[in-house]
Amino acid sequence: MRLSSALLASLLAAPPLLAQTTATERAAAAPVLTEIDALETRVAPTQLAQRLTARADADRDRLLARVESHWTGSMQALSDWIGHHPEPGFKEVLAVDTLTKVLRAAGFRVDTGVAGLHTAFVARWDSPAGPNGPTLGLIGEYDALRGTQGDFHGDQHNAQSPVAIAAALALQEYMTEKKVPGRIALYGTPGEEVDPPAKAIMWKAGVFKGADILVRSHSTTQTTRGRAGFGVCCLNINSVKYVFKGRPSHQMSSWNGRNALEAAVMFYTAVDRLRTTWRPDASIQGIIPEGGAAPNVVPDRAMVDYYIRYPDEVYLAHIDSMMTNAARGSAMAMGVDVEIQHVGEYRDGISLGTLDELAFAYAKKLGATKVVEEPQRPSGYEETGLVSREIPGVGVTVASSDHANHTYEMTADNFNEKGHSAFLIDAKVEAAILYDFLTNPQFRQTVQTEHKTMAALFDRYVAGLRSAYADEMKP
Amino acid sequence: MRLSSALLASLLAAPPLLAQTTATERAAAAPVLTEIDALETRVAPTQLAQRLTARADADRDRLLARVESHWTGSMQALSDWIGHHPEPGFKEVLAVDTLTKVLRAAGFRVDTGVAGLHTAFVARWDSPAGPNGPTLGLIGEYDALRGTQGDFHGDQHNAQSPVAIAAALALQEYMTEKKVPGRIALYGTPGEEVDPPAKAIMWKAGVFKGADILVRSHSTTQTTRGRAGFGVCCLNINSVKYVFKGRPSHQMSSWNGRNALEAAVMFYTAVDRLRTTWRPDASIQGIIPEGGAAPNVVPDRAMVDYYIRYPDEVYLAHIDSMMTNAARGSAMAMGVDVEIQHVGEYRDGISLGTLDELAFAYAKKLGATKVVEEPQRPSGYEETGLVSREIPGVGVTVASSDHANHTYEMTADNFNEKGHSAFLIDAKVEAAILYDFLTNPQFRQTVQTEHKTMAALFDRYVAGLRSAYADEMKP
Amino acid sequence: MRLSSALLASLLAAPPLLAQTTATERAAAAPVLTEIDALETRVAPTQLAQRLTARADADRDRLLARVESHWTGSMQALSDWIGHHPEPGFKEVLAVDTLTKVLRAAGFRVDTGVAGLHTAFVARWDSPAGPNGPTLGLIGEYDALRGTQGDFHGDQHNAQSPVAIAAALALQEYMTEKKVPGRIALYGTPGEEVDPPAKAIMWKAGVFKGADILVRSHSTTQTTRGRAGFGVCCLNINSVKYVFKGRPSHQMSSWNGRNALEAAVMFYTAVDRLRTTWRPDASIQGIIPEGGAAPNVVPDRAMVDYYIRYPDEVYLAHIDSMMTNAARGSAMAMGVDVEIQHVGEYRDGISLGTLDELAFAYAKKLGATKVVEEPQRPSGYEETGLVSREIPGVGVTVASSDHANHTYEMTADNFNEKGHSAFLIDAKVEAAILYDFLTNPQFRQTVQTEHKTMAALFDRYVAGLRSAYADEMKP
Amino acid sequence: MRLSSALLASLLAAPPLLAQTTATERAAAAPVLTEIDALETRVAPTQLAQRLTARADADRDRLLARVESHWTGSMQALSDWIGHHPEPGFKEVLAVDTLTKVLRAAGFRVDTGVAGLHTAFVARWDSPAGPNGPTLGLIGEYDALRGTQGDFHGDQHNAQSPVAIAAALALQEYMTEKKVPGRIALYGTPGEEVDPPAKAIMWKAGVFKGADILVRSHSTTQTTRGRAGFGVCCLNINSVKYVFKGRPSHQMSSWNGRNALEAAVMFYTAVDRLRTTWRPDASIQGIIPEGGAAPNVVPDRAMVDYYIRYPDEVYLAHIDSMMTNAARGSAMAMGVDVEIQHVGEYRDGISLGTLDELAFAYAKKLGATKVVEEPQRPSGYEETGLVSREIPGVGVTVASSDHANHTYEMTADNFNEKGHSAFLIDAKVEAAILYDFLTNPQFRQTVQTEHKTMAALFDRYVAGLRSAYADEMKP
Repeated sequence: MRLSSALLASLLAAPPLLAQTTATERAAAAPVLTEIDALETRVAPTQLAQRLTARADADRDRLLARVESHWTGSMQALSDWIGHHPEPGFKEVLAVDTLTKVLRAAGFRVDTGVAGLHTAFVARWDSPAGPNGPTLGLIGEYDALRGTQGDFHGDQHNAQSPVAIAAALALQEYMTEKKVPGRIALYGTPGEEVDPPAKAIMWKAGVFKGADILVRSHSTTQTTRGRAGFGVCCLNINSVKYVFKGRPSHQMSSWNGRNALEAAVMFYTAVDRLRTTWRPDASIQGIIPEGGAAPNVVPDRAMVDYYIRYPDEVYLAHIDSMMTNAARGSAMAMGVDVEIQHVGEYRDGISLGTLDELAFAYAKKLGATKVVEEPQRPSGYEETGLVSREIPGVGVTVASSDHANHTYEMTADNFNEKGHSAFLIDAKVEAAILYDFLTNPQFRQTVQTEHKTMAALFDRYVAGLRSAYADEMKP
Repeated sequence: MRLSSALLASLLAAPPLLAQTTATERAAAAPVLTEIDALETRVAPTQLAQRLTARADADRDRLLARVESHWTGSMQALSDWIGHHPEPGFKEVLAVDTLTKVLRAAGFRVDTGVAGLHTAFVARWDSPAGPNGPTLGLIGEYDALRGTQGDFHGDQHNAQSPVAIAAALALQEYMTEKKVPGRIALYGTPGEEVDPPAKAIMWKAGVFKGADILVRSHSTTQTTRGRAGFGVCCLNINSVKYVFKGRPSHQMSSWNGRNALEAAVMFYTAVDRLRTTWRPDASIQGIIPEGGAAPNVVPDRAMVDYYIRYPDEVYLAHIDSMMTNAARGSAMAMGVDVEIQHVGEYRDGISLGTLDELAFAYAKKLGATKVVEEPQRPSGYEETGLVSREIPGVGVTVASSDHANHTYEMTADNFNEKGHSAFLIDAKVEAAILYDFLTNPQFRQTVQTEHKTMAALFDRYVAGLRSAYADEMKP
Repeated sequence: MRLSSALLASLLAAPPLLAQTTATERAAAAPVLTEIDALETRVAPTQLAQRLTARADADRDRLLARVESHWTGSMQALSDWIGHHPEPGFKEVLAVDTLTKVLRAAGFRVDTGVAGLHTAFVARWDSPAGPNGPTLGLIGEYDALRGTQGDFHGDQHNAQSPVAIAAALALQEYMTEKKVPGRIALYGTPGEEVDPPAKAIMWKAGVFKGADILVRSHSTTQTTRGRAGFGVCCLNINSVKYVFKGRPSHQMSSWNGRNALEAAVMFYTAVDRLRTTWRPDASIQGIIPEGGAAPNVVPDRAMVDYYIRYPDEVYLAHIDSMMTNAARGSAMAMGVDVEIQHVGEYRDGISLGTLDELAFAYAKKLGATKVVEEPQRPSGYEETGLVSREIPGVGVTVASSDHANHTYEMTADNFNEKGHSAFLIDAKVEAAILYDFLTNPQFRQTVQTEHKTMAALFDRYVAGLRSAYADEMKP
Repeated sequence: MRLSSALLASLLAAPPLLAQTTATERAAAAPVLTEIDALETRVAPTQLAQRLTARADADRDRLLARVESHWTGSMQALSDWIGHHPEPGFKEVLAVDTLTKVLRAAGFRVDTGVAGLHTAFVARWDSPAGPNGPTLGLIGEYDALRGTQGDFHGDQHNAQSPVAIAAALALQEYMTEKKVPGRIALYGTPGEEVDPPAKAIMWKAGVFKGADILVRSHSTTQTTRGRAGFGVCCLNINSVKYVFKGRPSHQMSSWNGRNALEAAVMFYTAVDRLRTTWRPDASIQGIIPEGGAAPNVVPDRAMVDYYIRYPDEVYLAHIDSMMTNAARGSAMAMGVDVEIQHVGEYRDGISLGTLDELAFAYAKKLGATKVVEEPQRPSGYEETGLVSREIPGVGVTVASSDHANHTYEMTADNFNEKGHSAFLIDAKVEAAILYDFLTNPQFRQTVQTEHKTMAALFDRYVAGLRSAYADEMKP
């Protein structure tokens, strides 16, 4: 996750139940929210979760015991090892090497370098009882943060893959022993903390295709769950780089050149000029990472890098399109070229009542601490939002530190009882959810219906936004 | 003329014989200047003028006596009257009304409102001996300056038309009496001091077509003549207005609007950004005469007005074209439209040795004061330069004031002996030149050959510039 | 009022009961709002108004009958006459001449040109029973709007002074007849539609000093009243002009000048650059009404004119101060001077439950149409907000047109039954409120206590804001 | 030298004899140039050089033979070794280590790290006959260029110190043998190709104090000498960095920050806005080497780096001062701080007829090739110009390559006959000049008088400029 917890806290001070923050969004969402309420009333996910967690199920309990064996037997040590060998995004070669060895040893078929990403992988396993059952997906991240004192695992991504493997190994055993058909797929996703967003690239490359459910765990300071609906932590985002290319010349004959930096500065200023032409809910911030090489040469290359944020993706696209025009107009004005690189997208994701409530109920039952009963703002189970629109899933968030994300203190909790015990609960919750999804066809059906309905409602919401903005978006 | 005499003096401090001020211009002009030198050596205009003015010619002397009668009898009073009834550019209705009455009374056919300009006119007269001789053209201006104390004739345009009429009436008498075939055309040209440039509009409309020679007088503090060649007083100029048109909206919902002022300001700033992309000899200055109507409404209209100057017209067009791109790019960036109005053009004109030397010689012979023997920078006989490229002609500049152009002191000299005596010399010089051109076929042939050769050399010079700038002008 | 009714309607779609729109404002106001609620519970203004209007009072009923006589007898004709002789802000000489004649004829002492404003006046009358009673104040406006088809009374200010005079004359008769001590003061306030804000100037000059209550009527499309509290229609506003002064020079020697337009454009752009440094609730819009005189002269003077709006006055002052620095910095950068003129201020005003509910109840009782039962956003009874902080008062808003403010259709309603009958109700409501305030000491006391308490709470609210913003406002 | 030879060639196409390029400079220099002409007529340096080189002098010839022995015996190999171990500016540790070892071995006292520069050194030697004679100074550079294929000695600085040492060793022997009192000082000056300018720093630290003459050699494609006077290759230069420092904040609460990048961009744009306020002979070019770290954080630091060039140092200071105001004004406008770092200065230097003609005559006599007889634009013998104003000296430029400076082809010539033979001539010329200066008191006197007179004339020239610019420089 890309935001400091202090800021997160300040944002949570806003009404937490509503993902829609602008009047336009609320208007577009109003009929949709009514239908979500009706859907959730039908599904009654809290009661459903209550029933599922409370029931006696010897197989499940044995499964969770095996998760614990795998965790304490090896995975906790693997988590510590990755924690002590931090590697930043897209450079996680040690982690990937180790994790894929473990998975291959357990009988998984592993593809590395998927979707063109060097440190992305998929590990697949088919039940000896045959593949004709659900495909259970688990997501594992492993990139570290860059800090002034070197790289560090201040977001506890070191634990995520060992947690997933502990759950996967126990499920493997259960499916083998009980001859339950189906598949397990473990997705190794690099670079969560940096652009470009790996999961969006993997999603577009079809890597997640075939998964019927996805689970992911993440470090946090409180045990929470989202409310059913759609939303995103910190606005929908486009990350875009604008590269201007001119013609160099010596300063003393500058008229033979075409100044790419002037175009970059003109564009950067144009974005400021456009601010009142956009709704005030926009948050757009840029830098100039490349601004010329030597003062006595006309710069032939310059780059502006922007994070464009808006509460919804429809108006975000409108802003993005006007910024494209501003970049092209600036290039035309200065007689240079511009190349526009859309580096990353972060979007509203979908939270399902069925899965979020179930994860929350299991977490509480298994001893998670610092439980917040109030449901949180809905958001997908992965940061880009895109995967959660296609595949039902849940993010497991069990309190694993007393210290804010992205701190050295949270890093320390990786290696002590506070972190270790929370990671074990994460692994058990992942295993339990996948077990219920695998073995309970009616529950599986409910989850799938909820997801399908929610996705359709999301489309209606977007259509509503498009109609609301139509007038002001016209050229 | 559009420049204060103080500034003019400072410019004249630069080498006065060379019209070409930049190295590129000089390089492009070098072979052409050699040929101009050869041409002038062949023509030997100073000696030619010497011979023409020194020879005895009773008809000419009688003609000049008649000019004096017309001037002192009526034209001087008409000059004073216009001087006391100043009217600014394109509003010279009293002056035109009076002048055309005088000309009609003298038997001229007068067309008013020519070339779509309300206060422009042409007065034509054909000799009773038939029209099959040269057409003698005279130019008359009559617009006043705007000043803080009201309009005033600080550039002495009040005298110009009476001067031309005095010469024309005397020639009319001569041609009638001596049965000399030919025509006289007197061109009333409004608004010399303000845009749009009337003579360029009249030239494009074909108004001057058919004239074989054109003469014009102008107030000055020194009696001078130009060197043969091409040039312009104060750089070639494009006067261009850029009108941006957006969409209004109340301040509190500014996102429904498109801000034309932001586009105008962006463009104005873009011109500054481009300055080092142009050779430093450029002089480009703008204002924002329309910058929005009310601060609580998004401006839907804004205008930037530029004077673009460069020593030569080829690079000037290059700058103009890049400014067009800057305006279009700024409009694209802000989501507004732009309309680009080319309001005026001022260009290198052609000075002929034959006519300039003859005018200078007559002026000296007739008693002009404050004579400057050094030839001046070449320039056309009218401010746009365009007419002088097509039709041979000369501007008569006899010292008519001790005070700078555009001053109240020069205005005062309109009405005293200083001005009156100079205007009379102007009229005589105009008459004498037209007489020689009319009656001396060999001289006429020499003038026409010089003009044709010079125009061809000018084309070669422009081609040379185009080639010299080719690299840096390519997109 | 300065906003189109369409926009107003869109703004009213936001929660109408809360004046505080930002989270910071709401936080600062929270304890204050609790106390306002407690105050209003104690005062119970709705019930109080119910009792006052419902009670039998022969004197009051006779008073209202006299108001009607004055209106139909003469004031309606005066309203029509002013309506047919529209004069824009600060040029209302015919209106002031006529109104002051009427008031003088009725025994008022009239001072014109008060507070240095040519068309402002105060008319005062002391009861023959002595001045030792309350001073009843009435406000009258009379400026017209400028339109593309000429000036027009599209905001119905023509009726305001006749309405006030009808009420004043009836009160005069009552106080004389019944020997009730006290005073009447009628304030003629010019230029409501244009800057500078006349009432703020008059307030600062002490013109309103001594008034115990103030009433004003205004045209509207619905009969409404405000909720008790403080607020403003369309954010707190500073209207500021930034005049840059440089040094002129001819374009061809521009280095001898200092370009005031460049400084103005730099400042205008700097405001855009600062937008993300201010909270997004700010609304800041500017124009460049003076941007240079001629393109061939370096502009030595340029002006930028801004409307700076923010929901509260504390952060507004912060923005204003940063803009002052931006203007000074731009002037320093370009080597020119800047003069900053604070032309106008519009601020949160105070609405009192006692007076607003009473006005609303009388309006309904007297037949006002298109009644909106929902209380509206609080705001002062005059557009600057400043007077309402010092003196209790109420704005009477009886539906007087079916067409939006500032339209030609609303102008037409000035002269027909729709307008005439509403204006009569306005006059009666003003008279009735002043009558109750004059004759009911307990009610008067309640009004005064409510105002005093509210003003103290407003100071606490402002102190709360100051503390909330302290960190981000520090340099 | 900091300019490509292609550009240099294009500049040399301008009149080569005049250092003064602007009209103002020429006006200020006019009386001074007359006096320089008179001075040179008195000195008659060409004839003087003719006599000195042509005379028979066995000691000198033996000296030159010893130079050749040292060069071929060891210094050529040292030049090759440094050529094969290129080190960029201020990182020349291998070179300095080797050179100082050689000098210490020869009996020089060596101080390293002088003037606070790690790779600067001074090597001093006093004659056994006593120090009471002239101090002969030699300058040696050793920094390489950075290129796309790694560092390389494309400007042949590898040879400069070995050349100087060969001359110094021969002189050492001569002074010892012949008991000539005096001193030798060899200055190791780092980083000629990069800022900050080492020689200016060393000069300000007093390192060169005491030297009576300074010689330096440099690679070139032609054998030339400068005309007596003052000037600089490519305008006077200030190299200045403007560092803006704000306050960081997350993008989503940007109003808590102060944006240093906006200030940097505002300043960069302000420089463009000021261009027409400066004479067109200015050449000012900048880059933004630091423009923010991450797009989701308000940049708290940004830097703009400028090369400010003008033909003379007086107007250059005026531009620099206005840019300082522009930077401070931009910082004030954005609420941030700015730190202005003057990193480098390059100024008019002094060329002496006596020394330049003598060096040229010796070079020709000793077999230098590609001789250009036309004297070149005057300039100091070192790139900052400052040292040459205080100490007489000469730059020896013997054609040492057929390929332009800063090319890989010139690098190759370091190691072949073309380069080797030229370097040997360089060493002999340096030795011969220092020999004449040491042994010929009359010549020494002439040199010193010429330098003193020239320095005084330079002061008068600067005073003339100051007076010429006074009006336009006033605030």
